[in-house]
Amino acid sequence: MASMDNFEFAHRHRKQVVWMSQNTNMIPLSPKINEAIRQSVNEREYNLYGFKKGVFGLCDAIKADLKMEDWDIHLTNGGIEGLYMANRAFLQPGDEVIATDPSFMPIHDQVLMAGAKVKELDIYHEPWKLTPEHVSDAATPKSKMLLIIDPNNPLGTAYSRQEIRALCEVAEDRGMFVIDDITYRDFNPLHTLASDFYPEKTIVSYSFSKGCGMAGMRIGAVLAPPDVMKAIKKFDTNVLGVNVLAQRGALAALETKKRWLPKLRQICRKNQDVIKSAVSKVRGAYLPVFPSLANMFCVDIRETGVNPEKVEAMLLQDHYIHTRAGQYLSKRFGPRFVRVSFSIPTEQCRKFAAAFPKVMKALSK
Amino acid sequence: MASMDNFEFAHRHRKQVVWMSQNTNMIPLSPKINEAIRQSVNEREYNLYGFKKGVFGLCDAIKADLKMEDWDIHLTNGGIEGLYMANRAFLQPGDEVIATDPSFMPIHDQVLMAGAKVKELDIYHEPWKLTPEHVSDAATPKSKMLLIIDPNNPLGTAYSRQEIRALCEVAEDRGMFVIDDITYRDFNPLHTLASDFYPEKTIVSYSFSKGCGMAGMRIGAVLAPPDVMKAIKKFDTNVLGVNVLAQRGALAALETKKRWLPKLRQICRKNQDVIKSAVSKVRGAYLPVFPSLANMFCVDIRETGVNPEKVEAMLLQDHYIHTRAGQYLSKRFGPRFVRVSFSIPTEQCRKFAAAFPKVMKALSK
Repeated sequence: MASMDNFEFAHRHRKQVVWMSQNTNMIPLSPKINEAIRQSVNEREYNLYGFKKGVFGLCDAIKADLKMEDWDIHLTNGGIEGLYMANRAFLQPGDEVIATDPSFMPIHDQVLMAGAKVKELDIYHEPWKLTPEHVSDAATPKSKMLLIIDPNNPLGTAYSRQEIRALCEVAEDRGMFVIDDITYRDFNPLHTLASDFYPEKTIVSYSFSKGCGMAGMRIGAVLAPPDVMKAIKKFDTNVLGVNVLAQRGALAALETKKRWLPKLRQICRKNQDVIKSAVSKVRGAYLPVFPSLANMFCVDIRETGVNPEKVEAMLLQDHYIHTRAGQYLSKRFGPRFVRVSFSIPTEQCRKFAAAFPKVMKALSK
Repeated sequence: MASMDNFEFAHRHRKQVVWMSQNTNMIPLSPKINEAIRQSVNEREYNLYGFKKGVFGLCDAIKADLKMEDWDIHLTNGGIEGLYMANRAFLQPGDEVIATDPSFMPIHDQVLMAGAKVKELDIYHEPWKLTPEHVSDAATPKSKMLLIIDPNNPLGTAYSRQEIRALCEVAEDRGMFVIDDITYRDFNPLHTLASDFYPEKTIVSYSFSKGCGMAGMRIGAVLAPPDVMKAIKKFDTNVLGVNVLAQRGALAALETKKRWLPKLRQICRKNQDVIKSAVSKVRGAYLPVFPSLANMFCVDIRETGVNPEKVEAMLLQDHYIHTRAGQYLSKRFGPRFVRVSFSIPTEQCRKFAAAFPKVMKALSK
């Protein structure tokens, strides 16, 4: 409730707000992206339904970006729509999905819609991510899927190549699907796809929202082997295709990616230092994962005794900085942390750095 | 298969093609629409997720457009997404939905996804639409929903106020939901909402694709009474909202609607005359419904002995005019007709009028 009010407030002051609440990317990438969108607008291409298989070149560009040329691909209204279809296609009442706590909860909600359950494994401790042993111990004959969010939202942890291989082996031994949610892949130069090790039953969820800065465009894709894709497509939520302006922007983003990605990563790394320095000024606050290999991480404030929801509210209302209280991401651990995303211009990040210690001091009184 | 190939061909020649295949609207409406979209692009508003309840003013504008101020509303990626959610929310295996043949089949596919069945009532004869008697006779205790597409796609028939009232009474007597798909409402000045008579269980599916010319934007909405909406939202496919550029365009379209709608209707009416004149030149071809109160109708060619799929192919490949063979809209009646949409500039419609008799002559040999 409080959080919805905060979003309304933030949107009412959209241009003044420093947006660190939804892992969006506010850093200018390439002018080619806006140019491609504007050209499509000027041609009123949107009068037409887009070609269902995507504007020419887009699906190939996604597959090339992932080096997954031989996979089937389906464009979706945001990465989360592909997960919706996959969960509906493969889950039955009584089934179980192994995931984490904290996590990106809307995916868990989709599992519940199918009448299945989520086994949320505690990863709010070292090494701040799933381990093969943990997954293996938790799996039962009902376990149908393993959800890997890599890099992890909200912690910012990433899996090494060896770790992904080991998780895939556990899934394969149990005959489980792997949902490989790679929404934050662009921020991790060493990211490894689960499909490298377990092509038979890996479903890859791809997004343009974060690296490519197109959250409000609602475009993503799902990739899977042909038989798996066939089952997923039976539950197609958007037979009339995906927004064509989003497709034009997405294609331009991929075509220019080599040029903007290094700078984007550099800014995110710099911003983490800025935030770390501010957090170090607050007694009892710390960063569980540093550096993050995503565009966000958690600031743990448990020992300060301050409620993250109050931090979110005060940062927003007094300083026009929007972060997100952890309660959104974990019932159990959420009261311990604030999630901050930092794919924003560094001068905006410095505003957070100036405000955070003040807010924590005010709320500690 | 053939149809997909045609779509690829059409999109590869997008700018040369006369688009009469998907009931899209290619008539320029207001420059304010493009201006609103471009402003949002220039501000890179798409970097952010849109406010989940919609850009400020949009939902109120939709409700005002329908005079449904007191209803709950939910923005969707195209009208069809709201139907997807509603079908998932209310249908169980064994349930039945009463609909028509011909119809817009993707909605029927959604019913099948839920394990329910569609009872397709033959409306390919006078009065070319559902009658209360027909629905009443067909209903069984398993009948859970009545799907009213008004005006009807593909026939172009519309229901009078009295007819909608009578259909609602049948549904209410049986405790059925009414799905009121008003995608083509803008083309019928006398359109009546089912919600006027049966507010308790009417679900209204609203679209920006046709009247507002935004098919490729994928934006629509579902409206329902609060308890019904609550159940629908449990199956939300897009918790991260709808494309923000689509929302900006949609808002501008509604704000300027009074100015462009009369002209749009006038052009559509004129184009119907142009097409009728061409059809009258082909012996054995006729228009079952004329004038249409949508932006499309069927050209029945059964007595010519020509296969509509061949008409679609030749019109496209030889004349760059894309229409749609009826097979897409009805297994039973589809081989009798070609569906043509006419919300296009009149000079483009004249190209169809010139080509159609030639194509029919060539194929009749």
